[in-house]
Amino acid sequence: MMPHDNCQIFLVERPLGALQAHHFKRVESVVPDLAAGQILVRTILISIDAANRGWMQGRVQYRAPVSAGQLMSGNGLGEVIDSTVVDFAPGDLVFGDLGWQQYAVTAASAVKKTPAEAPLSHGLSVFGVAGRTAYVGLLNVAGAKAGETVLVSAAGGAVGSFVGQIAKLIGCRTIGIAGGELKCARVKTEFDYDQVIDHRSPTFFRELREVCPEGIDVYFDNTGGKPLEAALALMKIRGRIACCGAVSQYDIAEPTGPRGVPGLLVVKRLRMEGFLVHDFASEEHVVETDLRRWVADGQIKVREEIVEGLTNAPDALIGLLSGRNIGKCIVRVAPDSISNA
Amino acid sequence: MMPHDNCQIFLVERPLGALQAHHFKRVESVVPDLAAGQILVRTILISIDAANRGWMQGRVQYRAPVSAGQLMSGNGLGEVIDSTVVDFAPGDLVFGDLGWQQYAVTAASAVKKTPAEAPLSHGLSVFGVAGRTAYVGLLNVAGAKAGETVLVSAAGGAVGSFVGQIAKLIGCRTIGIAGGELKCARVKTEFDYDQVIDHRSPTFFRELREVCPEGIDVYFDNTGGKPLEAALALMKIRGRIACCGAVSQYDIAEPTGPRGVPGLLVVKRLRMEGFLVHDFASEEHVVETDLRRWVADGQIKVREEIVEGLTNAPDALIGLLSGRNIGKCIVRVAPDSISNA
Repeated sequence: MMPHDNCQIFLVERPLGALQAHHFKRVESVVPDLAAGQILVRTILISIDAANRGWMQGRVQYRAPVSAGQLMSGNGLGEVIDSTVVDFAPGDLVFGDLGWQQYAVTAASAVKKTPAEAPLSHGLSVFGVAGRTAYVGLLNVAGAKAGETVLVSAAGGAVGSFVGQIAKLIGCRTIGIAGGELKCARVKTEFDYDQVIDHRSPTFFRELREVCPEGIDVYFDNTGGKPLEAALALMKIRGRIACCGAVSQYDIAEPTGPRGVPGLLVVKRLRMEGFLVHDFASEEHVVETDLRRWVADGQIKVREEIVEGLTNAPDALIGLLSGRNIGKCIVRVAPDSISNA
Repeated sequence: MMPHDNCQIFLVERPLGALQAHHFKRVESVVPDLAAGQILVRTILISIDAANRGWMQGRVQYRAPVSAGQLMSGNGLGEVIDSTVVDFAPGDLVFGDLGWQQYAVTAASAVKKTPAEAPLSHGLSVFGVAGRTAYVGLLNVAGAKAGETVLVSAAGGAVGSFVGQIAKLIGCRTIGIAGGELKCARVKTEFDYDQVIDHRSPTFFRELREVCPEGIDVYFDNTGGKPLEAALALMKIRGRIACCGAVSQYDIAEPTGPRGVPGLLVVKRLRMEGFLVHDFASEEHVVETDLRRWVADGQIKVREEIVEGLTNAPDALIGLLSGRNIGKCIVRVAPDSISNA
């Protein structure tokens, strides 16, 4: 195998406040030879997620943190181009933490073979972690049912946009929270929310209370912070909160806790439950079957924002954390020779 | 029926910080005549609970708040001395919100007939709300199992002292949190905790971490605040937190939220669930059977601190909020002619 020049993005410094371009650097290197058990993968698409910023905060329990001086981590889809193991052959499509780089040398056991189908990007959005997280959080963790009022923060984000749509299609009333008046209007239309409230509005809480006069049955929390605090105050007795992420807390120097914990949990008998989609492997088949049917039937709209070029990954993540995008943010590192074949 | 002189304790002002004696006043009155459906009850024992202070904070969802200028609320046991309804006769023992007064005129439907047995006070401690709350919170809400590490805040309080003992007898390792070095030593011995840590110690968190090096499976939260924050940091993956009360937050002007919510809930997949014992009526028989057997077998020690005289109720509550007592705090308003009969 010819040596490959590699381009990689490293985290040079652990951000203490907002993530900025200078926290990253681009490194040119040469792909090393494969050791036994390894495969060489050409990165095609990288998933940009709020969690990427969370990984920089130190110990995160379910995976290693990303420290200063390390290659930036990120889930992605890539094509095997060289292999030392029988189960993986050149041309296979794989999903895993390929890192922010053109070529990844990885243990074959650390990635998962994935069917190649068009558009490939759906494997990182609706059929990937985002869509599956939305499904299990809303249905398995929170147990949302027809007729209930469901509130979703980061309502136009990768996960939130699917939560709102799934809730709507099972017969819930859906209220979203997003940032900025124009964005709220777009999110409401695009994902068919009954209402979307702007958390930047000075009258945010009052507006939210007005659109759910009877309270909230299920809150799908992607943000923590102010939306969580408002939701706690508006939950119905025996309401359920699925804690999916805390994006409001990742990119600031001094995280804050919501008021009302645990007092409101007690008097309203609320259940608040954190979850990770990895813990629902046994549900995978049901989840995937439902998601595929809903997409095929046009009941779920898949909104993706694809950024071209690995070197734009830092800006894509910085933008996501500031609430710039709608839908699933993905970086395209290389042309997709598989699904266009 | 002869008119009865009544002595009552009113809340004169809603406390903004710590509850003090001047927030209460004593009122002498005459018991009014009964209307249809009402009964007259002579108060024997009043239960003093942290929740009494919570009720002064305004809307509490599960009952009416106690406002300035109102008779102080409180659960108690009393003897029916006059009745307009067939189901209640003089001599019957009843449980309910009799208020802080010698005589209560109440709707018969608002109280519950209770067997008279010695000591009567057990009906407000181990067989009352305290013992039943400990049971359902630990076993039904948190689902504690043999071999697990259970942490309890307000470990020497009415509820906490039963939680620690029940956890121990089902085979858990038990760690308590209490305030003050001497109190911790007493609580450890009295309720057979494996360890009790002083939340007032400057090295509280480090001490707590040292006694649970492998983390906490179940945290029974009576306090919120600093103990909850410490517990969140020490919970094992998929740990459960039963939220029973937030006594650290009731008696202060500016409540604070714990850090780590919801971030730690997500990465550790924690479940945090508020509950009230009233919601477990269907379990009542099982709960009572177990508690009675454990008390009869000497597996649960019932610690009660009985304060004599209605006029000492304000001081008893103020003392409870400052962590003065161990076990269940009860005010005796009148001699107990039933169980001593």
